[in-house]
Amino acid sequence: MTYRLYYWTGIQGRGEFVRLALEDADADYVDVAREDGDDAIQPFLDGDRDGPRPFAPPFLVAGDRVVAQVANILHFLGPRLDLVPEGEAARLQALQLQLTIADLVTEIHDSHHPIASAAYYEDQQDAAKRRAADLRAHRLPKFLGYFEQIVARGDGHALGVHSYVDLSLFQILRGLDYAYPKAMATLSPRLPALRALDARVAGRPNIAAYLGSTRRLAFNAQGIFRHYPELDGDTGG
Amino acid sequence: MTYRLYYWTGIQGRGEFVRLALEDADADYVDVAREDGDDAIQPFLDGDRDGPRPFAPPFLVAGDRVVAQVANILHFLGPRLDLVPEGEAARLQALQLQLTIADLVTEIHDSHHPIASAAYYEDQQDAAKRRAADLRAHRLPKFLGYFEQIVARGDGHALGVHSYVDLSLFQILRGLDYAYPKAMATLSPRLPALRALDARVAGRPNIAAYLGSTRRLAFNAQGIFRHYPELDGDTGG
Repeated sequence: MTYRLYYWTGIQGRGEFVRLALEDADADYVDVAREDGDDAIQPFLDGDRDGPRPFAPPFLVAGDRVVAQVANILHFLGPRLDLVPEGEAARLQALQLQLTIADLVTEIHDSHHPIASAAYYEDQQDAAKRRAADLRAHRLPKFLGYFEQIVARGDGHALGVHSYVDLSLFQILRGLDYAYPKAMATLSPRLPALRALDARVAGRPNIAAYLGSTRRLAFNAQGIFRHYPELDGDTGG
Repeated sequence: MTYRLYYWTGIQGRGEFVRLALEDADADYVDVAREDGDDAIQPFLDGDRDGPRPFAPPFLVAGDRVVAQVANILHFLGPRLDLVPEGEAARLQALQLQLTIADLVTEIHDSHHPIASAAYYEDQQDAAKRRAADLRAHRLPKFLGYFEQIVARGDGHALGVHSYVDLSLFQILRGLDYAYPKAMATLSPRLPALRALDARVAGRPNIAAYLGSTRRLAFNAQGIFRHYPELDGDTGG
């Protein structure tokens, strides 16, 4: 099976959570838009292709299946890539955690775009400063504290063994380190289990190879995780 | 099996998407906090109970299972309540649509709380006016236009036959009619399939009985769907 991943070029974005699973499992996949351009995405969004119409990228084409929404894609891939424990209870637990990660991703995105995702950051910067201050003071400690307890209880893993959830938590930590370095420097001492997970995932051979490859784009000012010093408390946000 | 639903008292909130499925299927369930008070929820959030710790309500206890996140709960309940077609492809399609509904729910919530969910509306009203204007002008037409096409192609159903997704779309429509009556009056003529779904779901005997019962709380100014006339364009938002 060759998986075809559709996601915008130029950013890691939400596609990265899927990419990390495909890379960790050494799956056979094509990152379609990076080969054929972003125009390859639109016919699916317009409903001009067979299968369930995706609302937005990323989506994955697997044979005649079209699977959209990150958590749904990972729920689909988990058993196929051996990235989730067997059985309904474990799969539901993985999905539950991934959905909470998705909620956190949205809150991180909205910290720089609290008014309109299609508008410029500069046009919503004042609101962003307020939302980012709340993210740093309340939401990040709450979410990361929750995942810290989950991983500590799971002996260094969200589900007791390695899974796609660990890969997504790794991405959250790397993204937050980039976007909110000051806030994360303050929070990290209270997150020893998550920090150990971060190091463990980065050391997995396929992930290490991926991170050193040109396929891993750098974080930048167009993605979910953006570094604006004024949002990280540098101007008293 | 008696299901035990945990959700805050006093509002429909995200719990309502689960309630509608349980009611439609005439399932045996207890709305725990309404019987025992909101204090019944906290031990689960604190990680003091067995099973996967929920990040937030709603969560469902089914025997020794604890299932959190609305889309995950409905994915779990779907086959048990005969509210999703059989087979992995249909179940994934239902989950994908439910996750897109969850994204819309978050955007609707954030239209009145764009800065901090724990802060007062009055302290973020200016930002809310801007975000609500974007919701009305861009996001609602995009989301509802998407679901309109899905339901039109599904012969009046999101999945071709009645499912939990239809129940959630019904709730979205009722909530938006309450919160954004002017915007919905403008949009509705372009949503004939969704409006027919709305009427069909409301006419299902168990749903009709539920809507007429005291178990169905009224929409109010504490829930996800809130009616603030200034956010619906009454003051030029």
